[in-house]
Amino acid sequence: MKFGVDYYPEHCAEEHWKWDSEKMKEAGIDVVRMAEFAWAKMEPSEGRYDFEWLDEAIEILGQKGIKTVLGTPTPTPPIWIIEQNPEILPINLQGQRMGFGGRHHNCQSNEIYRNHIRRFVRVMAKHYKDNPHVIGWQTDNEFGNSHQQLCACDSCRTRFHQWLEQKYGTIDTLNDAWGTVFWSQTYSRFDQIPAPLPTPNSHNPSLLLDWKRFCSDLIVDFQKLQIDILREECPEHFITHNFMGFFDKTDYFKLAKDLDFISHDQYPMHFRDLRIPRTTPSHLSMALDLMRGTKQQAFWIMEQLAGPTGWEVISSTPRPGQIRLWTYQSIAHGADTIVYFRWDTCLVGTEQYWHGIIPHSRIPGRRYAEIKQTIQELAPHMEKFRNSLPEAEVGILFSYDQEWALQIQPHHPDLNYIEHLRSYYKAFFDANVPVDIVSDEEDYSRYKVLVVPLLFLTHPELSKKLYDYVSSGGHLVLSMRTGVKDWNNAVIPKTLPGEFSELLGITIEDYDCLRQFGQGLRWIAETATTEEDVRIWSDIITLNGAETLAEYNQDFYANTPGITRNTYKQGLAYYVGTELGPDMMRLFIEELLRGSGVSGMVASPEGVEITRRRGQDGDYMFVINHNSTEVGLAIPEEWNALVGTEYLQGTILKLPSYGVALFSCPLDTESPLIKPI
Amino acid sequence: MKFGVDYYPEHCAEEHWKWDSEKMKEAGIDVVRMAEFAWAKMEPSEGRYDFEWLDEAIEILGQKGIKTVLGTPTPTPPIWIIEQNPEILPINLQGQRMGFGGRHHNCQSNEIYRNHIRRFVRVMAKHYKDNPHVIGWQTDNEFGNSHQQLCACDSCRTRFHQWLEQKYGTIDTLNDAWGTVFWSQTYSRFDQIPAPLPTPNSHNPSLLLDWKRFCSDLIVDFQKLQIDILREECPEHFITHNFMGFFDKTDYFKLAKDLDFISHDQYPMHFRDLRIPRTTPSHLSMALDLMRGTKQQAFWIMEQLAGPTGWEVISSTPRPGQIRLWTYQSIAHGADTIVYFRWDTCLVGTEQYWHGIIPHSRIPGRRYAEIKQTIQELAPHMEKFRNSLPEAEVGILFSYDQEWALQIQPHHPDLNYIEHLRSYYKAFFDANVPVDIVSDEEDYSRYKVLVVPLLFLTHPELSKKLYDYVSSGGHLVLSMRTGVKDWNNAVIPKTLPGEFSELLGITIEDYDCLRQFGQGLRWIAETATTEEDVRIWSDIITLNGAETLAEYNQDFYANTPGITRNTYKQGLAYYVGTELGPDMMRLFIEELLRGSGVSGMVASPEGVEITRRRGQDGDYMFVINHNSTEVGLAIPEEWNALVGTEYLQGTILKLPSYGVALFSCPLDTESPLIKPI
Amino acid sequence: MKFGVDYYPEHCAEEHWKWDSEKMKEAGIDVVRMAEFAWAKMEPSEGRYDFEWLDEAIEILGQKGIKTVLGTPTPTPPIWIIEQNPEILPINLQGQRMGFGGRHHNCQSNEIYRNHIRRFVRVMAKHYKDNPHVIGWQTDNEFGNSHQQLCACDSCRTRFHQWLEQKYGTIDTLNDAWGTVFWSQTYSRFDQIPAPLPTPNSHNPSLLLDWKRFCSDLIVDFQKLQIDILREECPEHFITHNFMGFFDKTDYFKLAKDLDFISHDQYPMHFRDLRIPRTTPSHLSMALDLMRGTKQQAFWIMEQLAGPTGWEVISSTPRPGQIRLWTYQSIAHGADTIVYFRWDTCLVGTEQYWHGIIPHSRIPGRRYAEIKQTIQELAPHMEKFRNSLPEAEVGILFSYDQEWALQIQPHHPDLNYIEHLRSYYKAFFDANVPVDIVSDEEDYSRYKVLVVPLLFLTHPELSKKLYDYVSSGGHLVLSMRTGVKDWNNAVIPKTLPGEFSELLGITIEDYDCLRQFGQGLRWIAETATTEEDVRIWSDIITLNGAETLAEYNQDFYANTPGITRNTYKQGLAYYVGTELGPDMMRLFIEELLRGSGVSGMVASPEGVEITRRRGQDGDYMFVINHNSTEVGLAIPEEWNALVGTEYLQGTILKLPSYGVALFSCPLDTESPLIKPI
Repeated sequence: MKFGVDYYPEHCAEEHWKWDSEKMKEAGIDVVRMAEFAWAKMEPSEGRYDFEWLDEAIEILGQKGIKTVLGTPTPTPPIWIIEQNPEILPINLQGQRMGFGGRHHNCQSNEIYRNHIRRFVRVMAKHYKDNPHVIGWQTDNEFGNSHQQLCACDSCRTRFHQWLEQKYGTIDTLNDAWGTVFWSQTYSRFDQIPAPLPTPNSHNPSLLLDWKRFCSDLIVDFQKLQIDILREECPEHFITHNFMGFFDKTDYFKLAKDLDFISHDQYPMHFRDLRIPRTTPSHLSMALDLMRGTKQQAFWIMEQLAGPTGWEVISSTPRPGQIRLWTYQSIAHGADTIVYFRWDTCLVGTEQYWHGIIPHSRIPGRRYAEIKQTIQELAPHMEKFRNSLPEAEVGILFSYDQEWALQIQPHHPDLNYIEHLRSYYKAFFDANVPVDIVSDEEDYSRYKVLVVPLLFLTHPELSKKLYDYVSSGGHLVLSMRTGVKDWNNAVIPKTLPGEFSELLGITIEDYDCLRQFGQGLRWIAETATTEEDVRIWSDIITLNGAETLAEYNQDFYANTPGITRNTYKQGLAYYVGTELGPDMMRLFIEELLRGSGVSGMVASPEGVEITRRRGQDGDYMFVINHNSTEVGLAIPEEWNALVGTEYLQGTILKLPSYGVALFSCPLDTESPLIKPI
Repeated sequence: MKFGVDYYPEHCAEEHWKWDSEKMKEAGIDVVRMAEFAWAKMEPSEGRYDFEWLDEAIEILGQKGIKTVLGTPTPTPPIWIIEQNPEILPINLQGQRMGFGGRHHNCQSNEIYRNHIRRFVRVMAKHYKDNPHVIGWQTDNEFGNSHQQLCACDSCRTRFHQWLEQKYGTIDTLNDAWGTVFWSQTYSRFDQIPAPLPTPNSHNPSLLLDWKRFCSDLIVDFQKLQIDILREECPEHFITHNFMGFFDKTDYFKLAKDLDFISHDQYPMHFRDLRIPRTTPSHLSMALDLMRGTKQQAFWIMEQLAGPTGWEVISSTPRPGQIRLWTYQSIAHGADTIVYFRWDTCLVGTEQYWHGIIPHSRIPGRRYAEIKQTIQELAPHMEKFRNSLPEAEVGILFSYDQEWALQIQPHHPDLNYIEHLRSYYKAFFDANVPVDIVSDEEDYSRYKVLVVPLLFLTHPELSKKLYDYVSSGGHLVLSMRTGVKDWNNAVIPKTLPGEFSELLGITIEDYDCLRQFGQGLRWIAETATTEEDVRIWSDIITLNGAETLAEYNQDFYANTPGITRNTYKQGLAYYVGTELGPDMMRLFIEELLRGSGVSGMVASPEGVEITRRRGQDGDYMFVINHNSTEVGLAIPEEWNALVGTEYLQGTILKLPSYGVALFSCPLDTESPLIKPI
Repeated sequence: MKFGVDYYPEHCAEEHWKWDSEKMKEAGIDVVRMAEFAWAKMEPSEGRYDFEWLDEAIEILGQKGIKTVLGTPTPTPPIWIIEQNPEILPINLQGQRMGFGGRHHNCQSNEIYRNHIRRFVRVMAKHYKDNPHVIGWQTDNEFGNSHQQLCACDSCRTRFHQWLEQKYGTIDTLNDAWGTVFWSQTYSRFDQIPAPLPTPNSHNPSLLLDWKRFCSDLIVDFQKLQIDILREECPEHFITHNFMGFFDKTDYFKLAKDLDFISHDQYPMHFRDLRIPRTTPSHLSMALDLMRGTKQQAFWIMEQLAGPTGWEVISSTPRPGQIRLWTYQSIAHGADTIVYFRWDTCLVGTEQYWHGIIPHSRIPGRRYAEIKQTIQELAPHMEKFRNSLPEAEVGILFSYDQEWALQIQPHHPDLNYIEHLRSYYKAFFDANVPVDIVSDEEDYSRYKVLVVPLLFLTHPELSKKLYDYVSSGGHLVLSMRTGVKDWNNAVIPKTLPGEFSELLGITIEDYDCLRQFGQGLRWIAETATTEEDVRIWSDIITLNGAETLAEYNQDFYANTPGITRNTYKQGLAYYVGTELGPDMMRLFIEELLRGSGVSGMVASPEGVEITRRRGQDGDYMFVINHNSTEVGLAIPEEWNALVGTEYLQGTILKLPSYGVALFSCPLDTESPLIKPI
């Protein structure tokens, strides 16, 4: 499977299905995802099943050679389920029970609801296990979406107690770990522990962190319930789930474990209304790299933007070329299959303006043409890099536990764990250096450089792994707030950076949250001194073997170290005591890459991404112009243009706005320096 | 009746009543409104009635020739009603029951409360039907005010079910119309349908629109309950209600139907704390034109600002002259009677700082003097234009259904239906061209120009009417997002502008919500090219017979049409694909007026409004200086000054800040061009 | 006792206690506060008491000569109390019951909880009454903190009814006082009156004010419950409570009455996240002056900042010298004992980052060194001014009733009673003129100048006192909105400034809330005309005997008086009809001081505070450099340096950033003019 669409035959009259299948076929579509919200259509009342319509749709598509992935429709329990047992409706962290009328209106621990799932998923699986056009399953839809803070009902609270008992064994262990002695919160039984509903002040930070972990594990468990049935009934089918990049309600590393491969929903124009919009090229590519990293494996895009998106408010329309561009970007970073959301555009309901390829009028327009062109130019090459990956020499550690702990206590109102990571990521991205996003369970030995920002919570195994990594010659970067806490969110009574003092050759006896007072850094590692403001936080560092790369330039700790480097056994350990601006970060990453032997940075004009995907027989270079203007590049002679020949004049590539090109080049070619012209 | 005050004898000691009546008489007051919040005073406990105090107040006023309008006190059920049946307290859309202690703390569907109303209103009506000083009734107070999102109680939900059943007949019809297949929301019975209380995401947009219609209709029904009793008991009395301009909780066109005439509460300084303050001269006049338009009939101002207003925070004090100015403006736009809110200023309660004519000290000051002067100079002329109206050749369609649908899905965070309308209105207002605000049920044949902005929802009758209007020679303006949906808020599967493609001679296959990217227009209909930024939205238009008046000047659809004109049979159909800035709007309206034969624009200095009210024997020209500085105008010789002679030097009128003048001129005089000097 | 720490032995292992006591001793600590949150530790289940650990801690400290103040642990009822009677959990003004998991999760009227307190406090008091190391008690912790709007439960509502009945006697009296006739809110029984939970609009302002008074009195009563037991059991022990400066949930003048002395928690870096941050030098000193003013008596700092503070977000780290500086400032304004919060830094719970003297690592650092130095240089002098006070000739009246009334109706969105006061306070502070903050029950005869800003509510006794004050020669300043209301929040039907017209020689018939329109003042009392914008409000003043010091410079009331002065019998009465900017305020305060004979202003460089504390044998001058840069001053020869000799070169004092010096000088020395150099 290479290219697909999300398809909702139930949203239009049956008379359209045949035409749909023909136009899909014409565009090169070979797979659809269906049915993940269609429970009420498949089971209109309890025990009365109706799969005929879906069978018919699958058959029509199958006739055209289009395969089907089925979604379990568990994000939308029908009204007849809710009506019988309104306690299935979830309760948010303000203590308010959510109503029927949207989606995801289900508590995930409720046993009555789970029984409905057990019954229905088994019936559905049995029905489709032998259908020759059905190839796999998607569980539910976007776990964690719309569940921002659900559910705090009695059933969930009871599960939380069980989860805590399993983790801590005895209530005394929990009391010690959480430090409930503070503010007289000592418990004598697990069932006394509250869900984090409103109090006159703040909850215990250890409780809050465990609650977030519990909610994440509950989702994993809720998925497992379905997977177990599907594996039993449909052993030949794959199982996947559509993730959402840096959404963080569930630990995707854990959720991925039970899946054959993961999928991702990529909406490059959509997440602009977040406090920090996730729409820049580096945001998009970092999300793709995380998706690849959840299993260190190629993945599907299960929903790739195909038009303007939005519910009550709507995004801009994608500029001509952008849908194609984002398709290339997804593939460059490890997607093997691209499924566009969605085929047509729904006339009714909340997503009337979440535009599909085909507009409301059902008359194919420029987006259909662009996607058709994209498929036709890309499809012939897709097999060559199937299941291959970019081969990164740089890893950046991402941890849901750190993300949650720093959401609970951000220290500075503007501290954002993901953006802090991205400040590193972007410097590599701008230099076109491939990066893996890795979990704390990964083997790091393959990386020349490992960046571990904000390692706030620590545990002995991870500490040891990082010591071993450097000992064996790795170049490690740690940053501010490293080593502060144990894994239960209690502070470790050591001088900072705690466990990592020896590795880093420094101590930190004071620190400054940058609120009333500002701060800056002066780069001193070279003759040219660059100075730039820093933000959020400054560690005040005492050298204990390390050397200084940059020093603060203001206030009472002016001229003390802000960035340090320490030689430890075979490796180097860097420490960055603050959040860097872009200039300082660029200097730092250049220094880091120079020292580490990571293969040469590839210079490209601003806004032009060059991403390599290593195929079985050579490298594939994706050249992607994120700019709205034409940009020229000199291309190495040994590169062979597969897509974009029309933009080439000799070795000069003139990419139009949002233009892309694809090259092949011999395996293990040293990446040459591409210069802007 | 010409001039009145809102009077609350219950708020002060009886000893003041006689003095009050004398000072009212002296100022020229001939009517008061009373009692609309005085239930507890008239019925201190169930069945114990006390009208003596009110009889006394009516009598004292009557002695001075002052007539009384009585309000039914239904916005303030006394504590003894609430105490017996706390379920009368309304529930907001967060699901929270509101408490006693303010006003409007009543569910409008609750039958127990309705029975209290049936009893009390009948007793009150019987008591006053033969009182010679009582001339009419106001129902309740400002329906929809304070009811922003009330009420979602079980009683209201049941009524909603009945309303839906009446509208749709069968649940399948509703399921089809709403598209409940989306997200598995199919219902099998009406009583399963939720009120739009919080869900984890968003409700179905068709449900949301029907909910708003239901809430509006419930208010109409709640009023009808009282009107039926009053008509039965007091057939000689008029019945009115005090509307609130562009407040939109109830469809005023429907609410007006059961009334003899409508009234309006005009607070030109008050609604500044709205996201878009409604305090500019064009906001104020547009509200008055809507009020006139609800019945195409003259109306009362039931509450005209008489001092600083506010509850917890307070407005500026009206500048000397402003109370007079706003009185003139109200009359110019169709008010026959002006009732000032309020006589004195309450010493207690929430409205301590909602200043009346008489200050807390009860010593008349400058506001009393200004109102007295205003009445004395205007009263002699009021009869001449009583029940006459401005005769507008331009209509602008306002629709509550569109307003609600675009609140539910504003597309762009800044899209505001009323402000979009006002962008057209203001261009006419600045040119002193009278405008009617009309409903979609109106006969449009009397208008040379009809402007129908944002005709988002359509129904076949309206479409036909608009085709007929243009066919017969009308000049019609439609704007962006026209023809998108049917009347149930489902998208129509046609290329935009849907039904109106033929009429407009265009198609729209793509559109751009102006979020990440900006856009502008270049006016090309004339030699002088003007360019200006546009906002909110751009339709990307293909001409299909129409011509281009202005084209976009940026991005991938630069140089494509943004404003078009199409000749259709005897008429012209314009389309504006975006939200215009003021310069482009001025050019467009000038073009429109030039082509349509609307009688000549009247130029006036900026901030000077000239509004014509057509009397039985001639035209009356109100010249109103909204500026805080003196402004001069040259006045046509045939105009005869009724008010403002002291500002005239020959034909030069020098209006001081906030000054006004009133002229008469022969009927059917061609409005001359007034030039700034 | 001179210097102490807040100590939580229960938060660390017992093995640390001995070391703690030694390091405390070394630093000069002679007192600790303990146990105010340790109920669960002292009574792990009902009736099972465990004081052993606390006895042990007290003993270890006692061995080093360190005395103990015990806190009653009533802000943190253990889970076993809540579990039995969840109705103890408080309900906020949104009607939501707060959960367990923070602190202050207790309704203060609940009798079951009060019985737990009666039992526990008596047991605790009996246990410690004869302990030789225990010297006193702190009740609960920071009453009003975290209780922002608690509690609206049935128990509290019933108490509110009792409170109202006690105040008003009959329901008719209440109806009259509140003006419940407005909006039909007349009550027939006290138990009908609601707590101010959400209504569709706003509650009666008299109800809201009485509710705030009731909530304040409830806290006083809740404290009294404990005090009665402690006085009975421990007659030799003092009782105090830790106040919070300008926090306003309870009337500190009333709360102070039952205490031997009050304490204050001073966090100079913490309250930056308030709408108006309370972190500037004048905010800090004004808070200290209020604390002294609550009993006109010296006080303790029970929590003096010792490091970065914060829960989820954290402040900057105190600059070197700032902890010392703020210690000096506290003492200068009347603190006799400084207790630092806290000794060590908690590893667990909500306050992990509320840094103590000793960091998480337990390795003393620069903050320990700074505090140790501070104690050692100050301790020798502390006895000399023990129980003495600054002797101020200027009083500023602060009233919780005004604060509450103006919170309920701020008039202008930016009106802030405390900031309005501070605009006066700061001008005195900048001139180094000592100020007392006094209640409306104080004897004002000792002040040459009395400033009474925003005297919105009035009562006859206070009016008389102010008349008497001026009659006897006092110089009184009143400001805008004076005399508007009676003490029940009803407007007084008089021309403003009401009772004070005669005293001030003015009347105010109109006023202008400065919203749409701006305004400014022109100082005309001298040749040099200064003009400056004013804000919030302008009274439009008619002179009736007074003279004009400054007049408005804009709009229709340009050239009318804005600041006036009236000679009344032996004194002068000033009126300021608006909120002044800093330049106008400086001119006004200079004029005021010139005329009043307040001893000479002391000029000091910007940011340098000079505060005098009068000792038994002379004056002590605290010179405090709040700047981050060095500043020089010329010091009078007769001053004798006690601290800071190293900064002196002859009579030139060169204070480094955040530097302090302490001088003694002969009693009754005329304060000389200190000039910046």
